[in-house]
Amino acid sequence: MAGSTWGTLLTMTTWGESHGKGLGVVIDGCPAGLNLSEEDIQKYLDRRKPGQGRFTTKRQEGDEAEILSGVFQGKTTGTPISLAVYNRDQRSRDYDDIKDIYRPGHADYTFDAKYGFRDYRGGGRSSGRETIGRVAAGAVAAKLLESLGVTVIAYTRSIGPIEADPDRFDLEERFANDLCMPDAQAARKAAAYLEQLMAAGDSAGGVAECVVDGLPAGIGEPVFEKLDARLAHGAMSIGAVKGVEIGDGFLTAGSTGSVNNDGFIRDPDKGIKKASNHAGGILGGISDGSQVVLRAALKPTPSVSCVQKTVSRLGEEVETVIKGRHDPIVVPRAVVVLEAMTAFTVADLLLVSMSSRLDRIRHFFHNQMKENRPI
Amino acid sequence: MAGSTWGTLLTMTTWGESHGKGLGVVIDGCPAGLNLSEEDIQKYLDRRKPGQGRFTTKRQEGDEAEILSGVFQGKTTGTPISLAVYNRDQRSRDYDDIKDIYRPGHADYTFDAKYGFRDYRGGGRSSGRETIGRVAAGAVAAKLLESLGVTVIAYTRSIGPIEADPDRFDLEERFANDLCMPDAQAARKAAAYLEQLMAAGDSAGGVAECVVDGLPAGIGEPVFEKLDARLAHGAMSIGAVKGVEIGDGFLTAGSTGSVNNDGFIRDPDKGIKKASNHAGGILGGISDGSQVVLRAALKPTPSVSCVQKTVSRLGEEVETVIKGRHDPIVVPRAVVVLEAMTAFTVADLLLVSMSSRLDRIRHFFHNQMKENRPI
Amino acid sequence: MAGSTWGTLLTMTTWGESHGKGLGVVIDGCPAGLNLSEEDIQKYLDRRKPGQGRFTTKRQEGDEAEILSGVFQGKTTGTPISLAVYNRDQRSRDYDDIKDIYRPGHADYTFDAKYGFRDYRGGGRSSGRETIGRVAAGAVAAKLLESLGVTVIAYTRSIGPIEADPDRFDLEERFANDLCMPDAQAARKAAAYLEQLMAAGDSAGGVAECVVDGLPAGIGEPVFEKLDARLAHGAMSIGAVKGVEIGDGFLTAGSTGSVNNDGFIRDPDKGIKKASNHAGGILGGISDGSQVVLRAALKPTPSVSCVQKTVSRLGEEVETVIKGRHDPIVVPRAVVVLEAMTAFTVADLLLVSMSSRLDRIRHFFHNQMKENRPI
Amino acid sequence: MAGSTWGTLLTMTTWGESHGKGLGVVIDGCPAGLNLSEEDIQKYLDRRKPGQGRFTTKRQEGDEAEILSGVFQGKTTGTPISLAVYNRDQRSRDYDDIKDIYRPGHADYTFDAKYGFRDYRGGGRSSGRETIGRVAAGAVAAKLLESLGVTVIAYTRSIGPIEADPDRFDLEERFANDLCMPDAQAARKAAAYLEQLMAAGDSAGGVAECVVDGLPAGIGEPVFEKLDARLAHGAMSIGAVKGVEIGDGFLTAGSTGSVNNDGFIRDPDKGIKKASNHAGGILGGISDGSQVVLRAALKPTPSVSCVQKTVSRLGEEVETVIKGRHDPIVVPRAVVVLEAMTAFTVADLLLVSMSSRLDRIRHFFHNQMKENRPI
Repeated sequence: MAGSTWGTLLTMTTWGESHGKGLGVVIDGCPAGLNLSEEDIQKYLDRRKPGQGRFTTKRQEGDEAEILSGVFQGKTTGTPISLAVYNRDQRSRDYDDIKDIYRPGHADYTFDAKYGFRDYRGGGRSSGRETIGRVAAGAVAAKLLESLGVTVIAYTRSIGPIEADPDRFDLEERFANDLCMPDAQAARKAAAYLEQLMAAGDSAGGVAECVVDGLPAGIGEPVFEKLDARLAHGAMSIGAVKGVEIGDGFLTAGSTGSVNNDGFIRDPDKGIKKASNHAGGILGGISDGSQVVLRAALKPTPSVSCVQKTVSRLGEEVETVIKGRHDPIVVPRAVVVLEAMTAFTVADLLLVSMSSRLDRIRHFFHNQMKENRPI
Repeated sequence: MAGSTWGTLLTMTTWGESHGKGLGVVIDGCPAGLNLSEEDIQKYLDRRKPGQGRFTTKRQEGDEAEILSGVFQGKTTGTPISLAVYNRDQRSRDYDDIKDIYRPGHADYTFDAKYGFRDYRGGGRSSGRETIGRVAAGAVAAKLLESLGVTVIAYTRSIGPIEADPDRFDLEERFANDLCMPDAQAARKAAAYLEQLMAAGDSAGGVAECVVDGLPAGIGEPVFEKLDARLAHGAMSIGAVKGVEIGDGFLTAGSTGSVNNDGFIRDPDKGIKKASNHAGGILGGISDGSQVVLRAALKPTPSVSCVQKTVSRLGEEVETVIKGRHDPIVVPRAVVVLEAMTAFTVADLLLVSMSSRLDRIRHFFHNQMKENRPI
Repeated sequence: MAGSTWGTLLTMTTWGESHGKGLGVVIDGCPAGLNLSEEDIQKYLDRRKPGQGRFTTKRQEGDEAEILSGVFQGKTTGTPISLAVYNRDQRSRDYDDIKDIYRPGHADYTFDAKYGFRDYRGGGRSSGRETIGRVAAGAVAAKLLESLGVTVIAYTRSIGPIEADPDRFDLEERFANDLCMPDAQAARKAAAYLEQLMAAGDSAGGVAECVVDGLPAGIGEPVFEKLDARLAHGAMSIGAVKGVEIGDGFLTAGSTGSVNNDGFIRDPDKGIKKASNHAGGILGGISDGSQVVLRAALKPTPSVSCVQKTVSRLGEEVETVIKGRHDPIVVPRAVVVLEAMTAFTVADLLLVSMSSRLDRIRHFFHNQMKENRPI
Repeated sequence: MAGSTWGTLLTMTTWGESHGKGLGVVIDGCPAGLNLSEEDIQKYLDRRKPGQGRFTTKRQEGDEAEILSGVFQGKTTGTPISLAVYNRDQRSRDYDDIKDIYRPGHADYTFDAKYGFRDYRGGGRSSGRETIGRVAAGAVAAKLLESLGVTVIAYTRSIGPIEADPDRFDLEERFANDLCMPDAQAARKAAAYLEQLMAAGDSAGGVAECVVDGLPAGIGEPVFEKLDARLAHGAMSIGAVKGVEIGDGFLTAGSTGSVNNDGFIRDPDKGIKKASNHAGGILGGISDGSQVVLRAALKPTPSVSCVQKTVSRLGEEVETVIKGRHDPIVVPRAVVVLEAMTAFTVADLLLVSMSSRLDRIRHFFHNQMKENRPI
């Protein structure tokens, strides 16, 4: 596999380059009968769209999703859902400054090493625009999960050294500021930090956090398809992500067993629940009925406007300055990508988990056979 | 897929429970012509074997690997390599203390939620012994990589708050102490720390680090099968791992672009190389020819001997004490598991990368057709 | 997987419904550096287009392929190639005659049983138009194979009881008649046979044959991914196909070992070859260097205009007459679909086979590392 | 993938060579809670065992299956089921007659072309003994299907020119004769035919047929994972199979639409059924609720004792005589292999089909969440 497909029963296959004709995704395995409209997808795409605040590029991309197949009379039919976003901005711009240069922190050199040449226009396939397909697919997965009572929400946890304070945590606030932070005060500090970096032609990194609520216990396949392993794969496959953790993550390395273990207690509704959630909702790779918590570390945008030393395709050492306006931080726009990858992965494993137990399968087929009667 | 298979062209399928008849792995897609003996595998298994020092369980498991297929006249034949380790220790021990209890930090509850019941003997499939198959497969992958000039090495980076000091870093030292730390002084401190925890019936976590040397640029498939994404998946699929990072990882979230970007420079041997390696050898999900650096955070062993509150299968709140002797730290034994998963993943993607370029494929088949002549 | 993706290293994911916005395919894993234009694809699509002769529907579909991604400066980039054909003919036609009826021989009932409802316009996803994506992908695979010296050709072997005579076999002739038969005399007889059936509102079946030349020995993976098994899967996945055979196929069941075995002989060019080819170029699931020969039996078009008894969605027994003009035979248009599926499958397994031998892999990477130098 | 794994949710990975230490299979994704014992598997293995009649080799292989994992307290646990059969007969026999010769009709040459060398002892991985793993896995799948009311039965349809007569068809009879034919009279004729061939050192081919009863409508995924396509793939992956057909198969190529279409009628029990079954229970790749009917053509055993011309590894033209006693017909022993592949494929697609409809998934999870309560 050349790596553009994700999932086992619910799959997405993405395509498209930054400055090609368009980008899109084919979602296969989506169950029939889900209400789905272009608006459902647009809501998610709009959250990753540039040109929305001080800290995103001004390019007006539009990014309007079109449903090309798989939906009939407003409902998914069970067949592949093809979604496309056509690029408006395909002008033959001047890319002479980057086409023969290996920009530090970008994938220019590695694409050349792998493929012998590359579509250098705006980064081609390695552009952040590649995530359009993922976000569109995530919108469908989120709608599917919603119908099963599962919600997935991501936000900016920190930008550079400024972290959202758990005591001031307010989920509504994340849509109220440019930085998608659930803490107004931290958002203001982070904005000041970014302004300072921008003045110096520099950029910042940060951490995005994603939580899944309402997921029943029992989701995730032991050994290699553990829920946390699949979530980590999905998150790390997002361009700028350099680290992923579940629950207390790297902090657990410094903790002790007596502190880190989550005891079980009785629960009047669910029968059983955990008294704490250091584990981030996953034990042995299987969801435990608690909130699933995932964090991804994103590196600083590599497109900085200060002078950088590098090498050309011909092996000459050169100095380069990345032109144009670039996001000084990718986290606020990456939040919806993390949310999309998480939703899609959870939805897929949720479908896979249906075949875990014979008793449930028997019950399912006993019912199905009756329901298949047309009368 | 129920999740016991890993890889695209080079695959492993593991099986076995802690106290069943045995454990093993079927490796498929290993190229023909690799010299392989049981000793090659045993060397790796011995590194994860318990009973080797103060900080691992005393159970004498032996864990002797047997090659059941796929090797003829000392060489791999290209057909599946079946490796088995039979359990010596299958006595009908008394598991009454855990069979109806959900141990905190273990997968007892989630296995029950998923499957309706579980093999409770020693943790069954969720036992650390599950990694025997992975390590055996990793030994084969490491041998394959070695023949291509690629080496994979893992060690303990930190235990609890004690970290190996880069200035005292000595790779030879990692086999000289019980803790697999490449720093003798840190190993002594960590040992003292662990003794203290053991006295209190408690346990510690830590960080394992893995480096890949000699990997050519161009390995890893863009988008979902990125090298870093696959490595993260593999690492996170190891039982106790709660976080994974590549290169500077979570530190990049606090860095700036001007600092974090690795500039390219000319290299007399390779033509091009990076002046620094914040990226950990991967750009855009594709290896860049530098050392690949991966770290995994492992939580403290959940089996602690202090009293813990939990719930029984019947929903009664109970207090439990985990009996028997357990490792106070899993990191030293997990090191070889991380090495195995990394080696296997890299080897698989290396094979996959052979089909990236038409010019190379043409060259390959032009040669193959001539070579297929028996004379 | 919901089944719209085909292949291991070279994959295609198709989408689209007969009367939706369009149909298409995403091809992933195509090696970089292949010259590819829309004309390359159009040539293949034109061969499956309706409205080309007496025996295909008159609907003017156009079916113009557009390349949306994966090609830059006339060459494939190694990233996903998205191809789309937009439907011109989306008028809100009157489908009242079929939307509540289960047409005999069609998938109406089974889609309803599986998904609860269906896109009934022109058969939706189960329409023959679904093959547009396959044919477009097959065109790319054929071009790839061509560059490696491998050719794939399919034609009509028989229509109803009229078979092409091996003694009159003329491959050029297949493009000279409406029925894609490599025997002008048989084509005339078959045309007369079809005219007769059309007069009665009836339809015919037939056999398509496909041959692969130039394939080196050693392609195909033993056990489940045998070349013949994958070819059979691909062929049987084409709508109307009810049987597949390799080489002498069903005739071998009546043969004897002494007759059916193909002896090996020396060959000045290839070193070794077979004296006969009952096996159809495949032994033990692996290509043997001879011509690969595959046949597929296609059932008569189910859309016949005579009165048929069936049942409605509501379970009422009704009589139905399929309106409109339909192909009395699908074989001539299915020929290019079989060719496409065969080319794609062969190309995929050819790439997979590159990792069979360590000596070749070592040679490959030794070369690659040198070539990766930009200078 | 090197091709030794089969299935999507329910997978089998087989391993082993004819004269290695043993052969086996790892079954993954089997739902938890299925009663399973070694006897369940042995029953199937005994049916493919040699030495059972006049027409199978006399080698006493025993072929006793051992369950190594995945079963606890007599029930499957949902984790991988590892099954092994150890070879008793590993003596260092004299293989000098075949190790440097390419036997006609065997995979000797193609394995050498692919892998550079081969385990020549008894055919190694290309031996008929490779099917032991498949049959063991099929036994598990059959038990799973049985618990859902689905049965899979295969038998010999014809041997050479002698076909079982539908008018004398008696399923009980298939276990009463050495040839597994459901027609005593045909079995006698076929026996005489085989005796004649054996006297001449020759061998015969034949056709095996497999029927699936009780399968609900809606199983199979459109496009590439159609039920018939997957069945064809599975059947064609069996060593000697050269052709596969569904329902009327190749006969449909000579039929007409008005005859071949199966009309639907009302059914008091199932609501709807077909009046005939030319389609063999599958429409559009999805089961239609009728009996699924599959036939596989098997070529004559290539091991014949008459003199054959061939070429050695060194390219010398030689004459060879296959020594030892070999089955003059593989069909009677292949019948259980076809049954196993069919059962496994059907079981896998049945599990996959559970995620087709949102209404059913919602119902399933609504129930599951309640059932996950331990109290």
